[in-house]
Amino acid sequence: MRIAVDAMGGDNAPKAIVEGVMLAQQDFPEIEFILYGKEAEIKKYVTNEKNLTIVHTDEKIASDDEPVKAIRRKKTASMVLAAQAVKNGEADAIFSAGNTGALLAAGLFIVGRIKNIERPGLMSTLPVIGNPEGGFDMLDLGANADNKPEHLVQYGVLGSFYAQKVRGISTPKVGLLNNGTEETKGSEVTKKAFELLTEEKSINFIGNVEARDLLSGVADVVVTDGFTGNAVLKSIEGTALNMMGLLKTSILAEGVKGKLGALLLKKALKGMKNEMDYSKHGGAVLFGLKAPVVKTHGATGPEAVRYTIRQIHTMLETNVVGQLVTHFEEDSKDE
Amino acid sequence: MRIAVDAMGGDNAPKAIVEGVMLAQQDFPEIEFILYGKEAEIKKYVTNEKNLTIVHTDEKIASDDEPVKAIRRKKTASMVLAAQAVKNGEADAIFSAGNTGALLAAGLFIVGRIKNIERPGLMSTLPVIGNPEGGFDMLDLGANADNKPEHLVQYGVLGSFYAQKVRGISTPKVGLLNNGTEETKGSEVTKKAFELLTEEKSINFIGNVEARDLLSGVADVVVTDGFTGNAVLKSIEGTALNMMGLLKTSILAEGVKGKLGALLLKKALKGMKNEMDYSKHGGAVLFGLKAPVVKTHGATGPEAVRYTIRQIHTMLETNVVGQLVTHFEEDSKDE
Repeated sequence: MRIAVDAMGGDNAPKAIVEGVMLAQQDFPEIEFILYGKEAEIKKYVTNEKNLTIVHTDEKIASDDEPVKAIRRKKTASMVLAAQAVKNGEADAIFSAGNTGALLAAGLFIVGRIKNIERPGLMSTLPVIGNPEGGFDMLDLGANADNKPEHLVQYGVLGSFYAQKVRGISTPKVGLLNNGTEETKGSEVTKKAFELLTEEKSINFIGNVEARDLLSGVADVVVTDGFTGNAVLKSIEGTALNMMGLLKTSILAEGVKGKLGALLLKKALKGMKNEMDYSKHGGAVLFGLKAPVVKTHGATGPEAVRYTIRQIHTMLETNVVGQLVTHFEEDSKDE
Repeated sequence: MRIAVDAMGGDNAPKAIVEGVMLAQQDFPEIEFILYGKEAEIKKYVTNEKNLTIVHTDEKIASDDEPVKAIRRKKTASMVLAAQAVKNGEADAIFSAGNTGALLAAGLFIVGRIKNIERPGLMSTLPVIGNPEGGFDMLDLGANADNKPEHLVQYGVLGSFYAQKVRGISTPKVGLLNNGTEETKGSEVTKKAFELLTEEKSINFIGNVEARDLLSGVADVVVTDGFTGNAVLKSIEGTALNMMGLLKTSILAEGVKGKLGALLLKKALKGMKNEMDYSKHGGAVLFGLKAPVVKTHGATGPEAVRYTIRQIHTMLETNVVGQLVTHFEEDSKDE
C-alpha cells in the first residue's frame, strides 16, 4: 500500500503534513509513503524513515494559482508529481492539503475517471449531531458547477459504495437533496433525478431530503448537484463558525460571571466543538477516479492528516475503487 | 392603511394571530385590520374592536393542502378571501401564517404580478451575527424551483428597493450567491447573471458572495435562484437549531456543574438565541406582486405577528411596491 503525499500543499506545509504522516506511520507501519516536495524542509520533521521515500522538487502549486493552468504548466509541482506517480503505478492513492481546484484538475487529467463515470464528485463525510460516531456522505460538494440528473444517480451509487465499504453501513439510505420531501417537488434536474434514482436497483433510495434535516442524520448518503452542494456545505460551516464565535463573544461580554460559567462548561463546550468537527472522518474524496484522491483543509493540523491517511488506508484495504470499476464496467455491458 | 389578515393560518391560529394583531394595534392604532376566519373563535381573543372588522368564513386552507388546487377549490377559505380583498381594493396588504405554497399561489393568481416582473421571489431579512440591528435581504428563498439569469437581476432590483426604502440602507450592497468569489466562477446561470448584474445600473452590485460569509454581513442583499436559496436557508436554520440542541444536551450531560454553568451564562445564552432569531425583522415577503403579501412561520407566536405587521406598515408607509411598479413600468418604456 503506497500513498503519494503532496508535502507542500496547505497553509502549514510541510510541517503539519509530515508530522501527520509520522502519526499515521504509528497507526499503519505497513504503508509506504512517498513524499513530494523540498527535501531539506521535509527532513526537518521526519522522525522515522522506515517505509518513507522523499522525492525532491522545488516547484509547488500556490493556493491562488489558476487550477487547470497550474497543472499544465507546473509539471514538476509536488502535487503533479504525486498524481503522476499514481498514473504510472508507483503509488496507489494521493493525499494533498493544497489548492482544491488544482487537485480536482490533477485528478481528472492525470489520474483519470473510472470508465462510464461522467463527472466525478467531491464527497465528504459530514457530522450527525447527537451521534459522535455517525455521519453522512454528501456529494457533489463542488467539483462541478452544473450537473445533469444522470450524474446525481452516479453519485448515489458512488456514495452508497463508500458508505457500505468504507464506513461499514450495510444498506446505506440514499437521499436526494430537494426543496421539499414530497415526490412532486423539485427543480427540473431533481425531478428527473428522482425518477432515475427510483429506477436504480443497486441502491436503497429513500426519496427527497431537506437541507434542514441533514445534520440530524436523515440519510447515510445525500446526493446533489455541485453548485447546491457547495452552497449547503458552506452554509453549514458558516453558521457553525458564526455560532461558536457568537457563543464566545456572548460569554466574554458577561465578564467574571461569564468566565466562571465557561469554566464550569469547559468540558461541555469542548464536546460540542468536537462533535461539529468532522475531520475525524477524514478529508474530501474526489470520487469516481481510478484511485483515491483525497484532500484535507488547507489550514489542517497533523491530527487531521492522520485521520485522512486512515481513511485512505480503509479505501485501499477495502478496494472500494476497484469494486466501483467493476460495477461501472459491468453496467455498460448490460446496456 | 388596511391589512387583510388570514386569521386561520398557522399552528396556533387564530389565538396567536389575533393576540399579535392586538399588540400591533397598540403600536399602530391607525391601521384598519380585516380578519378572515371563524368569527366566534376570533372574538375570544379580541380585546379592542376599534378599526377592526371580522369577516366570517368556516373554510380554511390546511397546511398539507395541495397549494394550487386549494386556492382554486376553496373559494371562501380565509386566505383566499384576504387575497380577494386586496384584489378588489378593499385592503392594501395580506398577512398570513398559513400554507406557504398556497399563499404563493394566492399571491400570483389573485393579487397578481407587477408588470414586467417575471417571477416574484420569496424574500426574508436574515440575521447578521455580531450586529443585532443588522440583517441581509435574501431572495429567492423558494418561490421558484428554477430561475433564469434575468430573474436574478430582477431580484437584485427588488431586494435593493426593499433594503433602501424599508430598512433605510442608503446604497445597499447587492451580492450574487456563487460557488466562489472570483468573477469567472459559477454555474451557467450565475455566470450569465453576473454579467447582467454588472450591467444593471440601478443597483450597487458588489460581485459574487459565498454562503459561508452570509451571516457575517458580506452584503445587504443576496440574490440566488429559488432552489439554492431554499437549500441555503434550510441549511442555516438546521445548523443553528442542531447547535442550540447540542449545546443544551452537552450542558445537561454535565449534571450539577452544567446546571450551575448554564445559570451563570443564562444571559449570554439568551442573547445568543435572540441574535439568531430573525423574526424581529418581520416575515417572508412574496416580492414582485402588486401588494405586500407577507408570511410568518406557521409555529409563530404573537410577538412575531406584531413584528410582521410592523414590517407591512413600513412597506405601506414607504409605498415600496408603488415605487417598484413605477420602476418596472418605466423600464419597459426605455426598451
